Amino acid sequence: MLFIGERLNGMFRAVKKAIEERDKKAILEIAEKQMENGAHYLDINVGPVAAGAEAMEWMVNTVQEIGDVKLSIDSAKVNIIEAGLKLCKNRPILNSITADDEKISSLLPIAKKFGAQVIALTMDDKGVPSTAEGRTELAAMILAAAQEYGFSTEDIYLDPLILPVNVAQDCPLQVLKAIAMIRELDVPSPKTILGLSNVSQKCASRELINRTFLAMAMYCGLDAAILDTNDTELVNTAITSRMLLNKDIYCDSYLSAFRKNG
Amino acid sequence: MLFIGERLNGMFRAVKKAIEERDKKAILEIAEKQMENGAHYLDINVGPVAAGAEAMEWMVNTVQEIGDVKLSIDSAKVNIIEAGLKLCKNRPILNSITADDEKISSLLPIAKKFGAQVIALTMDDKGVPSTAEGRTELAAMILAAAQEYGFSTEDIYLDPLILPVNVAQDCPLQVLKAIAMIRELDVPSPKTILGLSNVSQKCASRELINRTFLAMAMYCGLDAAILDTNDTELVNTAITSRMLLNKDIYCDSYLSAFRKNG
Repeated sequence: MLFIGERLNGMFRAVKKAIEERDKKAILEIAEKQMENGAHYLDINVGPVAAGAEAMEWMVNTVQEIGDVKLSIDSAKVNIIEAGLKLCKNRPILNSITADDEKISSLLPIAKKFGAQVIALTMDDKGVPSTAEGRTELAAMILAAAQEYGFSTEDIYLDPLILPVNVAQDCPLQVLKAIAMIRELDVPSPKTILGLSNVSQKCASRELINRTFLAMAMYCGLDAAILDTNDTELVNTAITSRMLLNKDIYCDSYLSAFRKNG
Repeated sequence: MLFIGERLNGMFRAVKKAIEERDKKAILEIAEKQMENGAHYLDINVGPVAAGAEAMEWMVNTVQEIGDVKLSIDSAKVNIIEAGLKLCKNRPILNSITADDEKISSLLPIAKKFGAQVIALTMDDKGVPSTAEGRTELAAMILAAAQEYGFSTEDIYLDPLILPVNVAQDCPLQVLKAIAMIRELDVPSPKTILGLSNVSQKCASRELINRTFLAMAMYCGLDAAILDTNDTELVNTAITSRMLLNKDIYCDSYLSAFRKNG
């Protein structure tokens, strides 16, 4: 299970402030805490700040002061994504493309140029399909396009897009089905990912909803998630799910063993 | 989701002592606490005490002093089960039969006589099948036998028998698959049940393992569980699973709404 830490995002007030003030210490503290708590990658999203490309460059350089860190470069703007990718010392992830011709033709060549893996959202210019089948159809389209650009299936993380359960209550079930269906699209199975916290956006009991949904998604075959690794119970649930699905051996210290060895 | 409270079981030291001393107050306290915490039924198992049938009669009469309470009568001995069932004021559950001719021919007529629903374990004289397919085959056999005795599908709770993950690590996955497969055996779907705590028997992090497995099992379609309703996080996980699977409407107070209204 790949954990991508979600906290370095300009939509969080503290991060926005740190970016505006170019406060390295604040950014590094957040980055290090996520990694200590099990993040394999850190998602970097500068949010809606002025001079976004420059902010992204500053963020990437700052976070890489930690040393060996892997980054997911997250923006809706092509120039901001390119600004981040070009500075990454380890193989990065481009977050994200959609099943939109323009996104595909502008971003896949950039991902290729910088050797990035890619997160692809199962949506197009008409929005997010309401069904598992609709999401899977877009996933197949994206996979085919990526293969044309020379990517292998394992370079693409397909995200069937979980919407907040309080506004789209059928969505969790459709996304769970989509994860299982997307995994059947190719051999070896295409990888799936979720921006997990979105399921509980503006809900009560957010952490409980996040971890309950994560257990179900992992049963369906979820490979990766963008999440808050500082939520210990959430990470415990992921580790326990892997153990219950017989992907890691049970021992009495299985939680700390996973944290030590991944 | 049907919750059957597991705590009135002679394998727990406090219950064993209360049964031996015929301590009504201790039994009633345990019973009331489980019901307050959401148990729809209480499982009654006197455990390995002397004069089991008499102990069962005392337990059933004692617990029914609460008033309107539903019981699951749990024993490996036919005479103890009969002693319990005959005193139940509400429609009881007989816990349990197996896919064993002797169990079927001795216990199904008793269940019929007292109008009981039945928990059926997917095992026979050769033990518990190791695969989902083997469990489902036994479930089908039991269902067919029960129909011959005049039971409808909805009267039977099929238990694909979860073993402790620390001794049989492939078991959780097989049981999850079995739940989904058993639900396909008939229309409407046969009901499934688990003795949930068994998954974490003698494990570390028992509550975490129980609730993570429960979320997955509910995704697969689990209808009922014998569990410890005093474990608040476990019950919260069950309620959240129902909400995420779109079986109960989300509102900010969905946890307390379920507890109030079921």
